[in-house]
Amino acid sequence: MQPMSNSDCIFCSIVAGKIPCIRIFEDDAVLAFLDIGPISDGHTLVIPKAHFRRLHQCSADVLVSVSNCIGRIVQAVVSAVDAEAYNVLCNNGTAAGQLVEHVHFHIIPRNSGDGVFDRWPAYKYQDGQAEEIAARIREKL
Amino acid sequence: MQPMSNSDCIFCSIVAGKIPCIRIFEDDAVLAFLDIGPISDGHTLVIPKAHFRRLHQCSADVLVSVSNCIGRIVQAVVSAVDAEAYNVLCNNGTAAGQLVEHVHFHIIPRNSGDGVFDRWPAYKYQDGQAEEIAARIREKL
Repeated sequence: MQPMSNSDCIFCSIVAGKIPCIRIFEDDAVLAFLDIGPISDGHTLVIPKAHFRRLHQCSADVLVSVSNCIGRIVQAVVSAVDAEAYNVLCNNGTAAGQLVEHVHFHIIPRNSGDGVFDRWPAYKYQDGQAEEIAARIREKL
Repeated sequence: MQPMSNSDCIFCSIVAGKIPCIRIFEDDAVLAFLDIGPISDGHTLVIPKAHFRRLHQCSADVLVSVSNCIGRIVQAVVSAVDAEAYNVLCNNGTAAGQLVEHVHFHIIPRNSGDGVFDRWPAYKYQDGQAEEIAARIREKL
């Protein structure tokens, strides 16, 4: 069980009102605010108020709380900045680009040709490799 | 209301068993399978079986169904490929990189220095700009 609040966590301090943020939305379980280092105008962070480091560590009720408001927040963000599209991105772990160790969902408004994420380094598996990886994944489930 | 299945949708055809996939997980509402054009080994797609084009159009019960299994799938994927970290990414709209018009969550295993997403073009808002954007977003909520 993770602590409900972590005194060393900048996002817990924002939830507690000890560090300011530019607030977008708040309910009992969720807070949304502008990312202060946006990668596009309106770039918003949606966080559970409770402290969980990673998505897979979040309790079911926390994920349901985020699910219940994220669509509404997305629509408001996209409409406000008149964007064509959006990414919802949750980085988990330093190697995945997570900078704050409190789970957060980036809402990133997007427009054609904005170059925000212009790299998608897709490749093909070798023969049999995908089936072998899938079997290993299914064994872990 | 979106249709439950769309005959022109490749992911609806996968759900219906008309197009093969390398299956990882399935329950009544959700299917997970390997991306055939991975950006890292084990790159998995998690989709609702019902046809929704965008995250913000998904019904609440669909998002709850995804929420209820995604943590478990993430842990199996990350463990199976021995990754350090992972991204969960949902691209919505062509300008955001969505290629199939059926909402899907990418689970992307990550390791330090893999260069999969090595660009994060953060910038700073001009004075007052963030507050002005936030006010516009709050008006839309």
